[in-house]
Amino acid sequence: MRRQNLSVVLGTVAAHGPPSHTLSRPLSRADVAGRVGLTRAAVSSLVDELIMRGALTEEEAVSGGRVGRPGRALSVSDEGPAGLGLEIGVTHLGACVVDLRGEPRVWRRVERANVGRTAGQVLAETAALAAEVEAEAAGLGLRVHGRVLAVPGVVPNEPAGRVEHAPNLGWHTVGVADHWPDPDTVPEPENEANLGALAEYWNAEQAVETFVHVSAEAGIGAALVIDGQLFRGARGFAGELGHLPVHPTGVRCACGARGCLEQYAGLAAVLLQAGLGPDGPGAGADAVALLAERAGAGHPSTLRALDRAGRALGLALASAVNLVDPDGLVLGGAYAELAEWLLPSVHAELAERITVRPWTPEALRPSALGRRGPVLGAAQTTVRRIMADPTLLPAA
Amino acid sequence: MRRQNLSVVLGTVAAHGPPSHTLSRPLSRADVAGRVGLTRAAVSSLVDELIMRGALTEEEAVSGGRVGRPGRALSVSDEGPAGLGLEIGVTHLGACVVDLRGEPRVWRRVERANVGRTAGQVLAETAALAAEVEAEAAGLGLRVHGRVLAVPGVVPNEPAGRVEHAPNLGWHTVGVADHWPDPDTVPEPENEANLGALAEYWNAEQAVETFVHVSAEAGIGAALVIDGQLFRGARGFAGELGHLPVHPTGVRCACGARGCLEQYAGLAAVLLQAGLGPDGPGAGADAVALLAERAGAGHPSTLRALDRAGRALGLALASAVNLVDPDGLVLGGAYAELAEWLLPSVHAELAERITVRPWTPEALRPSALGRRGPVLGAAQTTVRRIMADPTLLPAA
Repeated sequence: MRRQNLSVVLGTVAAHGPPSHTLSRPLSRADVAGRVGLTRAAVSSLVDELIMRGALTEEEAVSGGRVGRPGRALSVSDEGPAGLGLEIGVTHLGACVVDLRGEPRVWRRVERANVGRTAGQVLAETAALAAEVEAEAAGLGLRVHGRVLAVPGVVPNEPAGRVEHAPNLGWHTVGVADHWPDPDTVPEPENEANLGALAEYWNAEQAVETFVHVSAEAGIGAALVIDGQLFRGARGFAGELGHLPVHPTGVRCACGARGCLEQYAGLAAVLLQAGLGPDGPGAGADAVALLAERAGAGHPSTLRALDRAGRALGLALASAVNLVDPDGLVLGGAYAELAEWLLPSVHAELAERITVRPWTPEALRPSALGRRGPVLGAAQTTVRRIMADPTLLPAA
Repeated sequence: MRRQNLSVVLGTVAAHGPPSHTLSRPLSRADVAGRVGLTRAAVSSLVDELIMRGALTEEEAVSGGRVGRPGRALSVSDEGPAGLGLEIGVTHLGACVVDLRGEPRVWRRVERANVGRTAGQVLAETAALAAEVEAEAAGLGLRVHGRVLAVPGVVPNEPAGRVEHAPNLGWHTVGVADHWPDPDTVPEPENEANLGALAEYWNAEQAVETFVHVSAEAGIGAALVIDGQLFRGARGFAGELGHLPVHPTGVRCACGARGCLEQYAGLAAVLLQAGLGPDGPGAGADAVALLAERAGAGHPSTLRALDRAGRALGLALASAVNLVDPDGLVLGGAYAELAEWLLPSVHAELAERITVRPWTPEALRPSALGRRGPVLGAAQTTVRRIMADPTLLPAA
C-alpha cells in the first residue's frame, strides 16, 4: 500500500514535468496532497521517503505572484538514480544513460564489426563501454541502478538472461552472465524491437495504447504493445514479422523458409536491390544514411528498391492489422529514417488489403526516435520500474 | 470482498465436480472452509447466500465409510440459473441452454436459408426459437439468466449490441435490439469465432492459455485467446485471419483485396475446387458432411481441394505464429470435422515456415467441439459471468 502511494506521489510530480519545462508553478507538498487525495501529513511522509531514496528533490520556489507563502518546489531528481541502456548491433555498440526524469544524459555509439566474433568478445567490449559510460554518468552525479541490453535476437521468457538466437550476430543460446566480466553489472538482455516499441510508447507525443512497431536493422523486428504493455507472446517470440511469408513461393530466406518479408524489406535485401550490395559503392558505409542520400537524390534503382520494400512491408502489416486489430502502426529504427520513401507504398498496400475493418492512413506513422529507440527504451526500462516501485531504490 | 469470496466458494464446489462425476466424497461446508482458508462460520454464511441465490444446493450425503457425522453435500445447481446461447448461421439457426455447471441441457439446430432475408426477419425467427427453447428449459427447472448471440460477423467493442458487418449474411450495422420483439430478452451479439475459441478454452481437456483458434462456416473466423482471456483487439476486429493475403497476386476476394485466405480455405472455395459448387451435386446439402463423405471415399478432386485449403491455412497460421507466439493452434468448427484431410498439409506448411522459434506439431490440434463450439460458448458466457460474480443472480 505504501509502495503504491510512493509510486503515485512520484508519478504526480513527474507528470507535472521538470521545473524548466512547465509554465505553471512547480508543485509543493500541499499541491501533491490536493491532487492525489491523501492528507498533507501522509504526503509529507511519502515525500520525505522519496527524498531519502534520492527520487525527489525539494527546493525553495520563487512565488508565482500568488498571495501567500510559496511552497517549496518538488521535482524528480536529475541526479542520483539512473538507468543504463546498452545495445549490440551488427556493426555498432550503443549506450545511453537516462536520469529518473527519463532524459538521456549520456549517449554513446561506436562502430564495431560484431559479426564473425564470439559472443564473449562482443560482450566483453560491451562491458568495457558500459563501464566508461557509467563513469561518465557518475561525473554528472548519476548512479546507475539497472542495466538492460538490447540485442537483435530472440530473448525467451524463460530462462532469464539468455539470448536464444541472434541470427545476424551468429549467436545461439548465449547466457549474458556467462560472458560478462563483472557479476555486479550484468545487464538483462531484451529483444531490440521490443525495447524500440516501448521507447515509442513512453516517448511519443501521441502514443496509442495498442500498436505494432516494426523496425529494421540487420533483420526486421516487430513488437506488439497491447493496452500499453509489451506483449512478448507465450514464450517470448512474438513479433517475428520479418518471417511472415509475403511471397509464399518467393526467394529462399536465411531462416530456411521461402518468401519471408526480410528478403524483400530487410536492409540487406534493399541494398542489394538498389545496386548497393556488399561489394558495391556502399560497402562499409552507414547503409541507412546511404539509402536516404541516394533516394533523396532521386537515384532510380534506390527508389525502386524502397518502393518494393514498402510494398512487402505493407503486405505483412496488413496481416498484422487483420489479426491483431491495433490502433496504430509505427515504422521505427531504420524504417523511420527512410519513411519518406517507404510510406507511399506501405499506405497503398494497406489501403488495398484492409477491407473488413475501418482503416485510416493516419494510423501509420514513422517514429520520431529513429535508430535511437532500442537503447533509449533499454535505459528507460529501469526508470519505469523505479517509478512503479520507488522502494527499489536503497534508502540513503 | 464478499462478492469475491462468494465466487471463490462457488468455484471450489464447481471444481470438485458434480456428485455423479466424482469418485471422492462430495464437499461439505467444512470441506470448503478447509480448502479456501476461511472460517467455517464465514463459509456457512457464503454458502447460505449462494443457496438463496440458487447457485448451490445442499443435500444429505451418504457417509463415505468414514467415522463421524457425514456432512451435507454441496453441489452446483443443475436447476435454476442457466445461460442461453443463440446462433445465426448462413443456413441455420442454433440454440443451446446450459445449466450453472456448464452442461448443455437443451440443444436445437434448425436449417434456415438466412441469406437474402432482412436482418429483421432473421432476428424475429431467432427470437421465436429462443422463446421455444427457454420454455423447454423452464420445463427442466432452468431459468435463463443471460443471452448471447453468435453471429458470423464483426462485433465492435463500441457501441454495444451492434453487428458492424456480417458479409455472408449481407448485414451492415445491425442493432440487435432494434429488431428483437421482446425488450426483456434481447441477446448480446458476439462474433462466432470468438465464442468458439472461448468454448474451446472452457471445455478442452488440456487447454493451453494462449492460442489461436480458427474455424470456418461461411467465412473463416479466428480468435486469439491470450492468458486465458479473449483478445478482441483495439476495436473488436482482431482475428480476421480469413483476409490475410496468402497469395498476394491471387484471386480477387469478395472483400475487394486479392489472394485472401478465404479464397483458398473458405468452404465455398473448397466446394468449388472439389467440383461441388453451388450448382453441383452438393447444392443444398450439408456442405461439410458432403466434403467429409467424399474425402472419406477417396474422391480425388475433394482430396486435392482439402490439401490446397490446408496449405493456405498453414501459410496463414504460420504468420499468426510468427506474430503472436501462441502455445497452441486449434482447428475448430467445420475445420475440426475435416481435420483428417486438412492436418497433413497444415502441418507441412507450418514445419516449413516456422523456423525462428521452436515448433512442435502437437501444438496444432482439432477441437473436439466441432460446429457446436460457438453456440456452446454463447450459452456458457453467462455461466462464467455468474461464477465470477454470483451476486448477478437475484436473491430468491
